[in-house]
Amino acid sequence: MHASQIESLIEKFERLPGIGHKSAERIAFYILESMSDDDARDMAATITEAKSKIHFCSVCQNLTDTDPCKICGSPRRDKSVICVVERPEDVSAIENTNEYHGLYHVLHGALSPMDGISPDDIKINELLLRMTDGEVKEVIMATNPTVSGTATAVYISKLLAPFDVNVTRIAHGIPIGSDLEYADKMTLIKALEGRRKM
Amino acid sequence: MHASQIESLIEKFERLPGIGHKSAERIAFYILESMSDDDARDMAATITEAKSKIHFCSVCQNLTDTDPCKICGSPRRDKSVICVVERPEDVSAIENTNEYHGLYHVLHGALSPMDGISPDDIKINELLLRMTDGEVKEVIMATNPTVSGTATAVYISKLLAPFDVNVTRIAHGIPIGSDLEYADKMTLIKALEGRRKM
Repeated sequence: MHASQIESLIEKFERLPGIGHKSAERIAFYILESMSDDDARDMAATITEAKSKIHFCSVCQNLTDTDPCKICGSPRRDKSVICVVERPEDVSAIENTNEYHGLYHVLHGALSPMDGISPDDIKINELLLRMTDGEVKEVIMATNPTVSGTATAVYISKLLAPFDVNVTRIAHGIPIGSDLEYADKMTLIKALEGRRKM
Repeated sequence: MHASQIESLIEKFERLPGIGHKSAERIAFYILESMSDDDARDMAATITEAKSKIHFCSVCQNLTDTDPCKICGSPRRDKSVICVVERPEDVSAIENTNEYHGLYHVLHGALSPMDGISPDDIKINELLLRMTDGEVKEVIMATNPTVSGTATAVYISKLLAPFDVNVTRIAHGIPIGSDLEYADKMTLIKALEGRRKM
């Protein structure tokens, strides 16, 4: 139907997360119909450049253009706490709170035997290596409250047992601003379990 | 927060239609975290290549890598009918029915004085030029049933009055498979107005 270059452009965008065939088609037509040649070239160059300049931080495994990354290299961060998350997006989310001043560790996934993701496929060994210098006092498990995120947290907490660190889990409960009535059963159970003295 | 290359990658995707900040961030991280270097380079090359090879057909103004496009150049198409649409996507949609065998004309927009889109901004002159050889017997206005799509259809039908062509409008009514109960008022009015003898 379409010229092969259009098909292949649609197909490239279709592979991106959250983009279905219709959206990919819309984006492809937008690029071909409405974008200037310069902007399209610029977009292509940005993809190539970002991909070549951005790599994983050798310490926390977050995406960075420096090594170590700005957070790991900062003298202002509390090096005794490491917050373990699944994805780089989670680091952004926590940084946006401006309330956390420790370091991070990005696993780049969560354990999921069903999807063939085993401990060697995520950055667990890199986390264990960070325990050896004795500087870390607390590891906060901030993986997602899903089956695989929870399994990952439990698995890592067992691996960390031999080290002299406190392993904690972020709290789960009713989100602020939401309605108790609409909370799902598991969230309510976690909220009750995690109740604290006022 | 992010390295400048990440920011700039997010910003590029954010400019595409239907992609908000969150989705752009997700896509950027996907490219940096999960895509192979080859795939990322390939994606960038596809954008540049499609943009350089794809242009507007000199006859129907649809996107094409040949000139005239495959539809305009096909001996099998009925050259006495032209279906006028707003966007290249609309051509794909009609082609997918396999029921239309005439030609097309892509306006690349619709008249919208509020958005500063006047007759010179869309491919109306190119349509009028196609009337001069006397081969065209019918022009089907298939612009969208919106205020600007309808205004464009009316405007063009007036310009076509001096030529010996039938100007028709695609039917508007209750979509097949949907429920009358949920049809909006304007659609119901159009469905009643457009009623035909059974």
